[in-house]
Amino acid sequence: MASVDVPVALLGYGTVGAAVNRLLVEGAEEIERATGHRLRVTRALVRDPDKERDYPVADGVLTTDFRSVLEDKQLLARRSADLFAAASQGGVQLRFEASVCAAIPVIKVLRESLVVTNVHRVLGIVNGTTNFILTRMEEGAEYEDALAEAQRLGYAEADPTDDVSGADAAAKMAVLATVAFGSRVELADVAYEGIEHIKPHHVAAARDLQTVVRLVGSATLVDGAVDVRVGPAFVDGHHPLAAVVGAFNAVMLQGDAIREITLEGPGAGGIETASAVVADMVSVLGTTGTGFLQNDACWRSLAKLPPGDLPSAFYVHLEVADRPGVLARVADCFAEQDVSIAQLAQHLVNGTAALDLVTHEAPAGRVEAALDSAARLAEVRSRPEALRMITERGF
Amino acid sequence: MASVDVPVALLGYGTVGAAVNRLLVEGAEEIERATGHRLRVTRALVRDPDKERDYPVADGVLTTDFRSVLEDKQLLARRSADLFAAASQGGVQLRFEASVCAAIPVIKVLRESLVVTNVHRVLGIVNGTTNFILTRMEEGAEYEDALAEAQRLGYAEADPTDDVSGADAAAKMAVLATVAFGSRVELADVAYEGIEHIKPHHVAAARDLQTVVRLVGSATLVDGAVDVRVGPAFVDGHHPLAAVVGAFNAVMLQGDAIREITLEGPGAGGIETASAVVADMVSVLGTTGTGFLQNDACWRSLAKLPPGDLPSAFYVHLEVADRPGVLARVADCFAEQDVSIAQLAQHLVNGTAALDLVTHEAPAGRVEAALDSAARLAEVRSRPEALRMITERGF
Repeated sequence: MASVDVPVALLGYGTVGAAVNRLLVEGAEEIERATGHRLRVTRALVRDPDKERDYPVADGVLTTDFRSVLEDKQLLARRSADLFAAASQGGVQLRFEASVCAAIPVIKVLRESLVVTNVHRVLGIVNGTTNFILTRMEEGAEYEDALAEAQRLGYAEADPTDDVSGADAAAKMAVLATVAFGSRVELADVAYEGIEHIKPHHVAAARDLQTVVRLVGSATLVDGAVDVRVGPAFVDGHHPLAAVVGAFNAVMLQGDAIREITLEGPGAGGIETASAVVADMVSVLGTTGTGFLQNDACWRSLAKLPPGDLPSAFYVHLEVADRPGVLARVADCFAEQDVSIAQLAQHLVNGTAALDLVTHEAPAGRVEAALDSAARLAEVRSRPEALRMITERGF
Repeated sequence: MASVDVPVALLGYGTVGAAVNRLLVEGAEEIERATGHRLRVTRALVRDPDKERDYPVADGVLTTDFRSVLEDKQLLARRSADLFAAASQGGVQLRFEASVCAAIPVIKVLRESLVVTNVHRVLGIVNGTTNFILTRMEEGAEYEDALAEAQRLGYAEADPTDDVSGADAAAKMAVLATVAFGSRVELADVAYEGIEHIKPHHVAAARDLQTVVRLVGSATLVDGAVDVRVGPAFVDGHHPLAAVVGAFNAVMLQGDAIREITLEGPGAGGIETASAVVADMVSVLGTTGTGFLQNDACWRSLAKLPPGDLPSAFYVHLEVADRPGVLARVADCFAEQDVSIAQLAQHLVNGTAALDLVTHEAPAGRVEAALDSAARLAEVRSRPEALRMITERGF
């Protein structure tokens, strides 16, 4: 693969811009492997070139031209027609994955995977700040305290109006509706309400109805007409959007052939948003010329982990004789293998004494060995059973 | 855009193959708009050309050559190296979205969106049959009855071994691990266990631990070595995989920049799987030559639905005077607007009588009008509040 430099210009070099540059530098090898190109930030448009930056750039990269562009927030929601026209005229791709839901690739899925499925409804939790506040209120916090906490944690700005009023979510729903329905929806077309008036009694009423309060954006096709709105809603406890907690985002796409696909992930954050920006750059390079999809997906050959080495917590069930000392002997089997026990309960099942225990994380092989020696105890009635516990998440 | 015919050959013309043909015919306009091409099935490889078909093809399309290819199940999990080599040699793209999780575009997301994020873990519920059975067991069914029900509904085959043994999930995890880590993982590398031995007492023990039993596939990078396995596990109730019910699939991707992204959707079905196959064809055409991503995402101009027309169920809260007849008067306001009431509860909040009610689905404007007239009643103490209820799903 030929290695050529692809110059990258960034409008803005704040949290996201700096993280994009960092990913381009740190991920240079992966990108070159996938696309044959090296990407390098050669220009970044900023208000104040002298400000200290998270991930500094070389001299001459920061510039203050085009100040007006920087000040046009919600650029895509307000001016997508102009942007698309300029891109078409220039024969280049306009990609905008990071404009909604940070790292969640919902724009790619809508534009590239769902061409024939006639998407007729998009439901989304597209603002992490308000979802964080609502989740804290579910746990008993008052609105003001939850908001203050969000501000302390950096989820909400000093002036939180854009988030809590629903305006930010409305801008994102305008972008999603435009792409989903192939018909321009501008911010002004979206009716929105925020969460400022949500009180503990709403949260309690929601709970009584087996629902939860969420700030839900919806874009719906009704007899060929578009409705896009954002507002607090009671979401059924079994609905995938009800399971979205904290500052996470999720979008459910409903269509004829797919029924529904839900995508969930972090809805904000510098590196998460930068990951979507870099994915767009990679996709542009991967889809011009020969494209990277002609490469084998495998570029390395990793060792296979020995099957007993993967660490996990385990649930273990043993049927035992109901006499003194059993517990100690079983516990010994685990101690000998250096497997520590997190929870233990002894009870009767169908007239037989049973031990249910949960281990701390330990290599599967050692848990297996502990089960083997437990199985050999006179007091243990049948082969002990073990099942893995899945609790860990990516944050 | 030039309209040229792109010939499509299908290996197999069963449920999925016929649905692919149907989507290509019925979605011809959308595809031509996006790619400039018309796709037409010109060959379909089958065992018996005389069998009756869901969506028949023209004479001469069905053929019985290459019988051996048809009989090689789990083609991609077993022979991906050969397939990639052949594609590379031919300078063509090998796409295989439909090989895992039907309509959920997890392969595209891994290959095109997550190039720089260093995915180190994939957790998946990748077999809908077993997830259906486990969900039914949670609701009280025994394993055998749940399996029989799955067979009756067409989720499980007469011989369910491939599903319930975990073999099908293992083949899918081999594909996901290969793509996620860029290192070949074959079916033989995956340790798997099925759900045949799951008993009600496991389901009960899981519930006691605030977890649910799921057949979980995991692919993990541990110090540069790969571990891929499938087995029943207890999944924490707050984990996104715990919320996956019935025959649905979900995959959680954990990586450095993204923390975690979860994709959920139908894991099987003819039209759902066909939608992924057609998405691959569209992506191939969209990424050769100029590619469809240079088009404006908008190709039509739909009307905006009048804001009051969108139907929804609503939760309504009213503070009222605690005297006889209030209920009837409030109910009248809704009846006048033809809004019917599904649930109603009267109770005291901070010494004030309150009415909480849930409407059946009705246009938002009529609910608004009912609230307006209720607000004018002498017995109603403050402006009534209404919040939408989100309960509908795409199936």
